[in-house]
Amino acid sequence: MDFEVVARDQNSSARAGRLVTAHGVLETPAFMPCASRGVVKACSLEDVAVVGVQSVMSNAFHLLVRPGAETIQRAGGLHEFMNWPGVIATDSGGFQVFSLADAKNITDEGVILPSPLDGHEIRLTPEASVQVQNQLGADIIMAFDECTSYPCSHEDAARSMARTLRWAERSKAAHNNSAQALFGIVQGSVYPDLRTQSARATAEIGFPGYAIGGVSVGETEQEMFAAVAAVLPELPEAVPKHLLGVGIPMQMIEAVAHGIDLFDCVIPTRNARHGLLYTWEGTIRINNARYRDDFRPLSEQCDCPACTRYSRAYLHHLFRLEEAAAWRLLTLHNLRFFAQLMKQIREMIPTGDLDQLRTRVVSITTS
Amino acid sequence: MDFEVVARDQNSSARAGRLVTAHGVLETPAFMPCASRGVVKACSLEDVAVVGVQSVMSNAFHLLVRPGAETIQRAGGLHEFMNWPGVIATDSGGFQVFSLADAKNITDEGVILPSPLDGHEIRLTPEASVQVQNQLGADIIMAFDECTSYPCSHEDAARSMARTLRWAERSKAAHNNSAQALFGIVQGSVYPDLRTQSARATAEIGFPGYAIGGVSVGETEQEMFAAVAAVLPELPEAVPKHLLGVGIPMQMIEAVAHGIDLFDCVIPTRNARHGLLYTWEGTIRINNARYRDDFRPLSEQCDCPACTRYSRAYLHHLFRLEEAAAWRLLTLHNLRFFAQLMKQIREMIPTGDLDQLRTRVVSITTS
Repeated sequence: MDFEVVARDQNSSARAGRLVTAHGVLETPAFMPCASRGVVKACSLEDVAVVGVQSVMSNAFHLLVRPGAETIQRAGGLHEFMNWPGVIATDSGGFQVFSLADAKNITDEGVILPSPLDGHEIRLTPEASVQVQNQLGADIIMAFDECTSYPCSHEDAARSMARTLRWAERSKAAHNNSAQALFGIVQGSVYPDLRTQSARATAEIGFPGYAIGGVSVGETEQEMFAAVAAVLPELPEAVPKHLLGVGIPMQMIEAVAHGIDLFDCVIPTRNARHGLLYTWEGTIRINNARYRDDFRPLSEQCDCPACTRYSRAYLHHLFRLEEAAAWRLLTLHNLRFFAQLMKQIREMIPTGDLDQLRTRVVSITTS
Repeated sequence: MDFEVVARDQNSSARAGRLVTAHGVLETPAFMPCASRGVVKACSLEDVAVVGVQSVMSNAFHLLVRPGAETIQRAGGLHEFMNWPGVIATDSGGFQVFSLADAKNITDEGVILPSPLDGHEIRLTPEASVQVQNQLGADIIMAFDECTSYPCSHEDAARSMARTLRWAERSKAAHNNSAQALFGIVQGSVYPDLRTQSARATAEIGFPGYAIGGVSVGETEQEMFAAVAAVLPELPEAVPKHLLGVGIPMQMIEAVAHGIDLFDCVIPTRNARHGLLYTWEGTIRINNARYRDDFRPLSEQCDCPACTRYSRAYLHHLFRLEEAAAWRLLTLHNLRFFAQLMKQIREMIPTGDLDQLRTRVVSITTS
């Protein structure tokens, strides 16, 4: 993996870059839709390529549960299994693991938990997680970390952060696939001192990229950006930074201004399935009765498969029927909006117009 | 609507034809997938065109319930509402109506029943049904008929058939859109004498096409074909004949040999959503564990979006996840099989090879 900064914002720490991987070049800042279980929910992968998606984020734990790392390895890796030629990142699944395990089964060695599918015992350690991610073969993989919940005391956050650092070293030692970039993960909850300490120590271990974990778990936006602000100055400037689980449009613009390059989030896909659509003219709740006889497209400006073919009235009808076709079309629409948003972010970095975009996005989004 | 027979089978009553409508030419024998509520379940309509679907069957009753005939009329008709440029037929929804209404609310005038959506009273008469179908604007519409359930006594079947005849006359008198072809419906349950009588009297009323209703409701295959055989000689030869609700591959070949031109059925779409796939190498139950590590396509011979892009292992994975993407891909696969089956039927009529196709289809289908 190679990362090159191609433009900088004169008014903030935002930068535009090119992430060169074995599966193509990803222009940054980039948003990765979630394909946690090997599919962008309600869509086929050939669909999401059409709306401009270049990269997706899968989840090693979910894929370990089903269909299993061996099946994917036999398929020739995750790219081949999904038939997705673009960039893939895998999260280690720490978040899921810690929500499923009993506290007594979480030790410095790792985590033991029952499979959510059939209850069989799964043992995850930094070594095992990295091995699974090596088998899956994503372009970007994540160190195995302990993700604190919110709220979390300073003492617990400090202890957890220290464990994550030990696991970062073990993850790096276990990593055994030079075609993949292993990112270190910064933790420390909402405590800037811990965040700074975590960033500094993770950077000392040394990774080709870094992710900020344990954000967007219930803390305030102010707390989240205080954590981001505490982390970024401590990380090497020249490598990509990923803000895990963040994807509200305004938050992404803010994070880009802090120097973040990569995002992943369920926001566009989950909101679409719940009928909340983003357009450059404002958000739409398609379930609303006002759309029953509205024969305009979701957005006149959008070139997605939903907007170029179907009316709000028809999509409202399909949504009320709880039709899978509605979930797919609405998901493709939101993914198109997100792809266009990221493109605008990238274009406004060299011209210093990120503030203009921020104003526009504030006016059209409800959250 | 114009119908022309272009080829005949020398060994049976099968014929190939061209049905010319305001929305294109439909080559017959043709299979219409169900788009009862204005969508082929789990698919978008632009999808089904890709796999060779030229016509769909919608349901006037379902669309009356939601979104309502007025909304569709305001959209410019069902073709515009669905953005489907091809042929559409609408069933009157008699079958649904009679299963939802209390017996005391079924009179010679019509049927009163509560809306399955919100309980409000719906009054359906031959006049009201035809008016709704005129508003929807499908190319082929159906007279309002009483559909008997199975089993049904000869006495009840005779009474119901007589009512259907009276309703056929009223449907014809009410029909008020020359761009649409109104088909008469033959009833008479499993009684060949009643079927013959119904066909003869419906033909006397005179329609540009005929449908055989009240079949595939639980009777044996032998009973069904006895009914079909009793009906067809009594109907004018030169017009299209539709066998309502039939779609098992072998039954369609058999019905074509009797002289049937049009079919509609949930078989390919519902079976796909339940994981039963048709291929020219045999049927596949994709949920079966044997497909977990099977990286071949469903069928090497198929050019559908599922077969050209994804493996059995991946489709098995999506199906086990109960992913909407699986339902869509598998539905598109089955619809492609059905489109290819009908194409083969049409090609084998002039060459007299329908028996060969029958042998092949017996060997690859389980039902």
